[in-house]
Amino acid sequence: MTDPAPPAASDWGRLAEERLARIARCSAPGQGVTRLPFTSAHRDALAEITDWMTSAGMEVSLDAAGTLIGRRGPADAPTFYMGSHQDSVREGGAFDGIMGVALACLAVEKLTSEGIVLPFAIEVAAFADEEGVRFPTALIGPRALAGTFDPSVLDLKDREGISLREALTEFGCDPDAIPSLARDPARAMGYLELHIEQGPILEAERLPLGIVTAICGIERHTVTFTGRTGHAGTLPMEGRQDALVGAADFISFVHDFGRRSEDLRVTVGQIDIAPGVVNAVPREARLTLEIRAPDDGLRAAAGQRLADRAGEIADLRGLALDMRRTYVQPAQPCDPALRAALVAADIDHSGAGRELPSGATHDASAMADLCPIAMLFLRCRDGVSHVPEEHASATDMGRAISVAAAVLAAQTPN
Amino acid sequence: MTDPAPPAASDWGRLAEERLARIARCSAPGQGVTRLPFTSAHRDALAEITDWMTSAGMEVSLDAAGTLIGRRGPADAPTFYMGSHQDSVREGGAFDGIMGVALACLAVEKLTSEGIVLPFAIEVAAFADEEGVRFPTALIGPRALAGTFDPSVLDLKDREGISLREALTEFGCDPDAIPSLARDPARAMGYLELHIEQGPILEAERLPLGIVTAICGIERHTVTFTGRTGHAGTLPMEGRQDALVGAADFISFVHDFGRRSEDLRVTVGQIDIAPGVVNAVPREARLTLEIRAPDDGLRAAAGQRLADRAGEIADLRGLALDMRRTYVQPAQPCDPALRAALVAADIDHSGAGRELPSGATHDASAMADLCPIAMLFLRCRDGVSHVPEEHASATDMGRAISVAAAVLAAQTPN
Repeated sequence: MTDPAPPAASDWGRLAEERLARIARCSAPGQGVTRLPFTSAHRDALAEITDWMTSAGMEVSLDAAGTLIGRRGPADAPTFYMGSHQDSVREGGAFDGIMGVALACLAVEKLTSEGIVLPFAIEVAAFADEEGVRFPTALIGPRALAGTFDPSVLDLKDREGISLREALTEFGCDPDAIPSLARDPARAMGYLELHIEQGPILEAERLPLGIVTAICGIERHTVTFTGRTGHAGTLPMEGRQDALVGAADFISFVHDFGRRSEDLRVTVGQIDIAPGVVNAVPREARLTLEIRAPDDGLRAAAGQRLADRAGEIADLRGLALDMRRTYVQPAQPCDPALRAALVAADIDHSGAGRELPSGATHDASAMADLCPIAMLFLRCRDGVSHVPEEHASATDMGRAISVAAAVLAAQTPN
Repeated sequence: MTDPAPPAASDWGRLAEERLARIARCSAPGQGVTRLPFTSAHRDALAEITDWMTSAGMEVSLDAAGTLIGRRGPADAPTFYMGSHQDSVREGGAFDGIMGVALACLAVEKLTSEGIVLPFAIEVAAFADEEGVRFPTALIGPRALAGTFDPSVLDLKDREGISLREALTEFGCDPDAIPSLARDPARAMGYLELHIEQGPILEAERLPLGIVTAICGIERHTVTFTGRTGHAGTLPMEGRQDALVGAADFISFVHDFGRRSEDLRVTVGQIDIAPGVVNAVPREARLTLEIRAPDDGLRAAAGQRLADRAGEIADLRGLALDMRRTYVQPAQPCDPALRAALVAADIDHSGAGRELPSGATHDASAMADLCPIAMLFLRCRDGVSHVPEEHASATDMGRAISVAAAVLAAQTPN
């Protein structure tokens, strides 16, 4: 008697689709999926994910940071990590985050079904909180594993006034035990995360999968131009010091500058002016500038060029300029060996081996402090995420499971 | 025995200064002057103005629209009008409006002191409401005189819920009698208003006075650019449809276009964007565009050119455009004969005979429906108005009184 044949890639994809449709019901009421950390929706989701992990032969436990961990392999063995986050934004979709947990479990289950035994342990993590919607912090789970958790965030509160410490305790977790979750870097082989692209590139190029080169670094600035207000009828055009005109010059420049490099993303997402009435020349225009790039040198050079240009515009328009960097987060390059393995597996399974940067931050950004990281992107319909319409196809998910399983199978402990 | 010599121009200016300092105390509490129509501050001001009018030999009455009228001359005689408004903005200054009332009274008093008898009647009007701060309407008084008063505005309410009808009645006026205030155009010789410039031109050119060529017409538009939002990290620069970038292109163009004509004033005073967060590409940018010009043809051509350019920018940036005119008010040219008389008197008294358009609307705008209008501007310190710091000097006010008196003395009824 022979074993039954393992399911085809398309069957694994359909299984992923069924599981994601089912867990999407673990949500607060409203459009799409709203699954905030340490809520009853989170609790319901853990029951589903426990089934996925058990089905893949893993031991399941909830850790002190609220991460559901599925582990397979001896306690002290070198360990390869996979996973993503269980939480969503408010009225988000059924794929962002949770798909990475589902596909990781299925990749392990696929290897098992094919009789492949890995010479190392594997852990799949369903992190509690990546979106940062409920509390003004994020990435608690991967930071705990990487040993970079900052206990002061336990005092941050949600909008109901509940602290993160209280929410964790109520959820059955022991916040004081979080520091003990840190893994030994010497035994952490790598971390692979599967995620929807959240952008239009793969769909535009008709490619199901993409391999991430780096998670972009981010810097944010506030840029304030200050001039002089006056009556829009009585103040002649010559000699006006119109703060909004300086801001407008800058916004157009920022955008056109960003288009010169394929890897740069530069965005003015907010603008506020004063006094802000139809018949007064604006005295002040304050805007935000965000710059992202997979290379920190490229990002810093862009920031400098844009600051220089802001100064030139202020001089030209007779304005004062105050520009200050309010936030910086370095880029996290993906591991060359893992990237190469993903490219090879992708070429084997579905084609192109397309590499691209990740403009968004992921759990992998924090896991990078523990071990080499890699990410596999799946194309998403219409390039959208964080909306009920976000979607990845069963076929693409099946391909991603095959690629992830192949990469796992190719790993060897040091 | 000879009569005492009339005061010198500088004495008339000092008298104006004293009277304006005194009436500035008729104000709600706070910085500067806050004198809204049909309030106790307005009531207190009427007592002061009554003294000014009486001092100039005029009969004083409060009309049904709340205008204090000082009249001198036979009931059915041809009449020359002067005046301005008694009200201020909130925390405004001591000159805008009320100075025109004070200087008109002093010009009449000066002629009397010089023994000059005018061959026509004269009326000085202290209009109640030009600033439109308390009620969402303005110019009730001059519209009543011109016969263009719209009774439906009586139902408009202030922010305490008091209607204009109630406020007038409480103030001792009979709103239903307003239509009977209309003057006979055949006997209305002209209207002369003295006002601070509210702009920097006269001060920059070291000129005390300026003669208004026309009160600018105004048109206002809302301009909405609509694109597509997306994550500022995951959406490549190419293919973005960033509504704020289109708006920025337009704002810079509007300003630089306006600088090509000395008579144009074009201003973007408001902008709002959505979603308006640091890490999202703006989907929508909505702004206001205001165009003012002393010539309606110039204004209409500017509006058309800017609309065309907005369309070009929308095409270039891949955006939808919705641009609609929300308001239009035609220009009011000043009477050529009165302008010439003012220029001649200004050259006699202080120099240059500088002519300039009025970018702001005034009571004269409404009086233009009754008779020929003219305006004389006084330079104001630092070009500012509507703030406690607004200021015209006693010397300049003395010159303005002399010029106004000379123009009055030169008028002859038809």
